[in-house]
Amino acid sequence: MVRWQPGTRERLQAVALQLFTSEGYDATTVARIAAEAEVTERTFFRHFADKPEVLFAGQEGFLGMFSDAVRAAPDGTAPFALVRLALEGSVGFFPEERRAWSRARQVVIDATPALGERELGKLATLTTRLGELLRERGVAEPTATMAAETAVTVFHLSFAQWIAPDEARPFRTLVHERLDALTAMVQSAG
Amino acid sequence: MVRWQPGTRERLQAVALQLFTSEGYDATTVARIAAEAEVTERTFFRHFADKPEVLFAGQEGFLGMFSDAVRAAPDGTAPFALVRLALEGSVGFFPEERRAWSRARQVVIDATPALGERELGKLATLTTRLGELLRERGVAEPTATMAAETAVTVFHLSFAQWIAPDEARPFRTLVHERLDALTAMVQSAG
Repeated sequence: MVRWQPGTRERLQAVALQLFTSEGYDATTVARIAAEAEVTERTFFRHFADKPEVLFAGQEGFLGMFSDAVRAAPDGTAPFALVRLALEGSVGFFPEERRAWSRARQVVIDATPALGERELGKLATLTTRLGELLRERGVAEPTATMAAETAVTVFHLSFAQWIAPDEARPFRTLVHERLDALTAMVQSAG
Repeated sequence: MVRWQPGTRERLQAVALQLFTSEGYDATTVARIAAEAEVTERTFFRHFADKPEVLFAGQEGFLGMFSDAVRAAPDGTAPFALVRLALEGSVGFFPEERRAWSRARQVVIDATPALGERELGKLATLTTRLGELLRERGVAEPTATMAAETAVTVFHLSFAQWIAPDEARPFRTLVHERLDALTAMVQSAG
């Protein structure tokens, strides 16, 4: 069902998600996840700090993709171009083979308030980091914060659409669609 | 200190906020608030459904101000113009005499995670309602949702600035500053 392979870390994530889905997040212990993945609990904790992290791990890498693209841009790149670069940088984190896993993961998160809060916290961190990065590059306020908030809004709306039931278009297309909608909206204001 | 008068409802809010500030939110009971305001607990509950509502009441009126401005706009008004109207509509909710109360209220909310969540929930409701309203007016997706998210972002960043320690400019000025920053950002992208 929810495959996304290989390696111990990925196997633990796939097994955990399957258990969360079939038996509930709260009812699933780390011992059970480890047993199903045929590793020791100690191995689990070598990969993940705690049970929720099995759903959130890798997000540092995601933050990196988001911000590396901004860091690599030449001096004087306009703020909205930096927003586009950050979003383009995030696209690689959402290949087609990840979509089924992301969909199942979201069902678990939506059913578990504490996980929903952790998810919101991660988005808030993303906004804060991006705002800092833009200010470091000389973008003034309130533009830096508006740009960071806008980037994260486009990101999370694109992600929500990417995992919507009948959506088949790639993540990149959905990001562009939302950026274009924002641009058209602001420019049509007259 | 934190005055904002008159009427029983407003007195209860002022007294509650003062107690939350001096003795802590969790340590302050409804009985204590009622006693300090010289009313019965029953009177408290005629005005507020529960203790947290003393900090959130009136938000229905706020939602109304936000959306009435959109409803009153002529057919065919561009989506970004509707965003501006919604934000202009909200300005009346934040007169100068409310600023000290809002600042003290935010300190209590930031110190109490459950209140922070309720605050986030109210912002999410605002986004959802505004998105619905825009779709009812014929704004297509993903523009309607982008517009609603953008409006609420401008709103909450303007509010955060309005209650910042040394800020003296009116709410309206801060809203315009953020809308202008967004417009300039998007248009400068080339």
